[in-house]
Amino acid sequence: MSHPHPELGAPPALPKNGVRIVALGGLGEVGRNMTVLDYDGKLLVVDCGVLFPEDHPGVDLILPDFDYLRDRLDDIQAIVLTHGHEDHIGAVPYLLRLKPDIPLIGSTLTLALIEAKLKEHKITPFTMSVKEGDREPIGGFDCEFVAVNHSIPDALAVFVRTPGGTLLITGDFKMDQLPLDGRITDLRSFARFGEEGVDLFLTDSTNAEVPGFTTPERNITPAIERVFAGAERRVIVACFSSHVHRVQQVLDAARVHNRKVAMVGRSMVRNMGIAADLGYLKVPDGILVDAKKLGDLRDEQIVLICTGSQGEPMAALSRMANGDHQIDIGPGDTVLMASSLIPGNENAVYRVINGLMRRGANVVHKGNALVHVSGHASAGELLYCYNIVRPKNVMPIHGEWRHLVANGDLAVATGVPERNVMLAEDGVVVDLVDGQASITGVVPCGYVYVDGSLVGATDETMLKDRRILRDEGFVTIIVVIDSATGRIAAGPDIRTRGFAEDEAVFDKVVPKIEDALEQARAKGVNDTHQLQQVIRRTVGGFVGGKLRRRPMIIPIVIEA
Amino acid sequence: MSHPHPELGAPPALPKNGVRIVALGGLGEVGRNMTVLDYDGKLLVVDCGVLFPEDHPGVDLILPDFDYLRDRLDDIQAIVLTHGHEDHIGAVPYLLRLKPDIPLIGSTLTLALIEAKLKEHKITPFTMSVKEGDREPIGGFDCEFVAVNHSIPDALAVFVRTPGGTLLITGDFKMDQLPLDGRITDLRSFARFGEEGVDLFLTDSTNAEVPGFTTPERNITPAIERVFAGAERRVIVACFSSHVHRVQQVLDAARVHNRKVAMVGRSMVRNMGIAADLGYLKVPDGILVDAKKLGDLRDEQIVLICTGSQGEPMAALSRMANGDHQIDIGPGDTVLMASSLIPGNENAVYRVINGLMRRGANVVHKGNALVHVSGHASAGELLYCYNIVRPKNVMPIHGEWRHLVANGDLAVATGVPERNVMLAEDGVVVDLVDGQASITGVVPCGYVYVDGSLVGATDETMLKDRRILRDEGFVTIIVVIDSATGRIAAGPDIRTRGFAEDEAVFDKVVPKIEDALEQARAKGVNDTHQLQQVIRRTVGGFVGGKLRRRPMIIPIVIEA
Repeated sequence: MSHPHPELGAPPALPKNGVRIVALGGLGEVGRNMTVLDYDGKLLVVDCGVLFPEDHPGVDLILPDFDYLRDRLDDIQAIVLTHGHEDHIGAVPYLLRLKPDIPLIGSTLTLALIEAKLKEHKITPFTMSVKEGDREPIGGFDCEFVAVNHSIPDALAVFVRTPGGTLLITGDFKMDQLPLDGRITDLRSFARFGEEGVDLFLTDSTNAEVPGFTTPERNITPAIERVFAGAERRVIVACFSSHVHRVQQVLDAARVHNRKVAMVGRSMVRNMGIAADLGYLKVPDGILVDAKKLGDLRDEQIVLICTGSQGEPMAALSRMANGDHQIDIGPGDTVLMASSLIPGNENAVYRVINGLMRRGANVVHKGNALVHVSGHASAGELLYCYNIVRPKNVMPIHGEWRHLVANGDLAVATGVPERNVMLAEDGVVVDLVDGQASITGVVPCGYVYVDGSLVGATDETMLKDRRILRDEGFVTIIVVIDSATGRIAAGPDIRTRGFAEDEAVFDKVVPKIEDALEQARAKGVNDTHQLQQVIRRTVGGFVGGKLRRRPMIIPIVIEA
Repeated sequence: MSHPHPELGAPPALPKNGVRIVALGGLGEVGRNMTVLDYDGKLLVVDCGVLFPEDHPGVDLILPDFDYLRDRLDDIQAIVLTHGHEDHIGAVPYLLRLKPDIPLIGSTLTLALIEAKLKEHKITPFTMSVKEGDREPIGGFDCEFVAVNHSIPDALAVFVRTPGGTLLITGDFKMDQLPLDGRITDLRSFARFGEEGVDLFLTDSTNAEVPGFTTPERNITPAIERVFAGAERRVIVACFSSHVHRVQQVLDAARVHNRKVAMVGRSMVRNMGIAADLGYLKVPDGILVDAKKLGDLRDEQIVLICTGSQGEPMAALSRMANGDHQIDIGPGDTVLMASSLIPGNENAVYRVINGLMRRGANVVHKGNALVHVSGHASAGELLYCYNIVRPKNVMPIHGEWRHLVANGDLAVATGVPERNVMLAEDGVVVDLVDGQASITGVVPCGYVYVDGSLVGATDETMLKDRRILRDEGFVTIIVVIDSATGRIAAGPDIRTRGFAEDEAVFDKVVPKIEDALEQARAKGVNDTHQLQQVIRRTVGGFVGGKLRRRPMIIPIVIEA
């Protein structure tokens, strides 16, 4: 398989009849999915999502790097959105800030979700709604949309025909053969495209390492039924706020067991409102109640559906676990955490589970019952896809490196030649020319951090500073120098925060600073910056040598 | 089951014939296991381990809270160590700092490991070596030691007889029926204690939520064999540095495949040296080589055994993944991560796996092969124990709240009355009087942080400061006030770190500070502390209101 090489340089000019594929996110990470197709001077963007930070202190979101597009915004024909998850649509508002009139193309539900999000950003987009079976010319890209099954309704794959070659892009998908809404991944169309010829197959790698087949969604119904049958008091269900089918299962169970349902949490209320309005969520008559009116009901009549299944500290579920929410969890309450556990969230989630259990609740979760299934096709299903599509070239997308490699291995196992499998990272350029894909270069593609209201202002240096502050705190030393004499007029005044040490310890360093400054003065050093360096060296040597600590040291010399 | 209540107060005086049990760690957390038995004015400590921090920035270790013992150090008869893992022995050096002559009692390997650790702390302890079958009077505690099987050799349970009642304490254990070293958990002795009468059974809860039975250790041999049979170049094995049996399996495979083995990493070299010296690790003749002499061997002759299986950034494996180690990982190398994935370490571990795979290595890990089994008994095995021991009272130990509850449920399922199951947290007092256990109170029991060379100096306030610094950075404002006039002599001088904002933005706040200080002066305010509050309010209002950020704000007023 074609590995990217560190020595890759800028790509050559794209041959007249070539299609260029550059992912600005989603390769080497789970999130910020965004793939740019380039043909005949025109660009088509597929998905534009966010990545949630791991070890990026203070960072709220990570965006794809739009730099590659900055000079070519006018070439963008449209953004095709395969489905409504944050990691596929979340960065759209930031791209539209650069050019608000780029059309958005997607299914009804996908567009409704992105429009609701854009409304919060005060943007009204140009949109074009499509459904499975539609075929639309978009600039030079002839796009045909195909139903795929995923953990959100109305997901689409897209088959893109260009004179330079054909591409089938799955987006996220799985192959549940008996989905709750009956909408299966359309393998007959995959087969038809295969017959026509798929030059490059870009396919979801998320579960490529998982052997076998993804469990059908309806297999979790018995666990939900057991929860409702056995619940003595309230039932509290936590799940992703976009998982319409999961919520449907809970509504159906609530109806059978004569319970009313209240939605809790802004995104849950908003998304399920949209899904119900559009007919994706079938709400039994009279079952919904306002969360504020639960006092009128007995505990055994109540179901709450809320967010917080990943242990997010500000979500309702975490606050219930801490006793910091109007819903006072106690013995007899049952909490159903009907979601996956995203790697990295384990400690937070277990903290919530322990907190709920300490209050006496019965907690049913992935660890002790079948209450969640994945939204992605496993290795067994991907093999079916490769055998049905028989693509000429393959480019695994959506995943960490280990996922991309595993997906590439599956392609090779079905007969795709190793050299036709493109293992690329964000920014790596794949050119499809005369039916042959190859890696031809790399474009700059960094991480763009959203930090409060700031986009792109936070950089690696700042994150490094934050990590030092987090682990070691800081020491600041203020000295006022008499501008007339050059002698110390006040200070050294030492302040620390987050630095675990008796401040009296600095009594020893103060004379050292005074000596060092006096020596510098005697040598004629009077530049503020240089004097600060003198202080930094003196304090750094003391703290590092005597105390064996590495806090951030901030010397401040002021002339007065 | 008896839940602790928040309204618990200090416990009453212990009745003359009662045994008091207080865990100072290990209940409600996985780590810092330490249980104190109190009978007739004498104390017996069982285990004294450390907890590894989760969201405790800058903290290296968390210790049990020794405050409960501080006035009663002379009453401590001994510390019984059930086995040599860090979460059972790691805090011994800190307890011995308070009183170095407390005897340590444990098996040969356990004592060798704690002695090596104490040597680094420059402490030579009093020790008494015991083995399974030994019965020793220790103060008023008549202790009988029993073999148990765990993920480190030579682990012991202890049966404690006192006139006030009998206690069986398992320590960590599992029930592998065909262990590699043939040393099984001695259920015949458990049965004998049951016949005699076990008043309180304190048993390992770690895997109580896991249904069924823990897979035998030898079931991972085929996966190891496959790795060695298929490896083209080097084999690099990462595992815990105390897992003697896992290392034994690797040594045996290396011998069969004619490879030499080098140990990498200080703790691995030290522990395996001890295990080999004492005969727990059987090292085939001539198989070990110095890691520095690998250059003399061809790649396909080499096995490295190293630490870093949890993604620890400074360990050899992480550095290999980053290309920052003398071992230059490349295509054909095989890395075997033969260990569990401790919750919270997922991101770090996957980062290492992705890094190794990007270099072309084949990585075999828990996610794609059976290369690790747990060291703890699962629910099925715990049921056997309850049915064999038939204890009067039960106290689940070693685990988060969810584990303790699950273990208590198992006891109840075998017929232990709910009111005889003691669900306690750290510091909760359990009294065993006339064969009946009950929760009678609570003693203070906090977290004690080791932070660099400091023990107990870091507190929650400091951790809160560090979290603010981590997420938001800080802003410091220095103003020099002329002590004669009360007017500003220099400044305001504003410095920030970790705060993502253009510093020019502060040009707007400087006049506000000057105005506020001038107004304060006009009102006769000249106290430095009060002036600092004026600055804090002014800057905090600006930053919070206009920029919507919450950095740490540090105003510094200096008179000159």
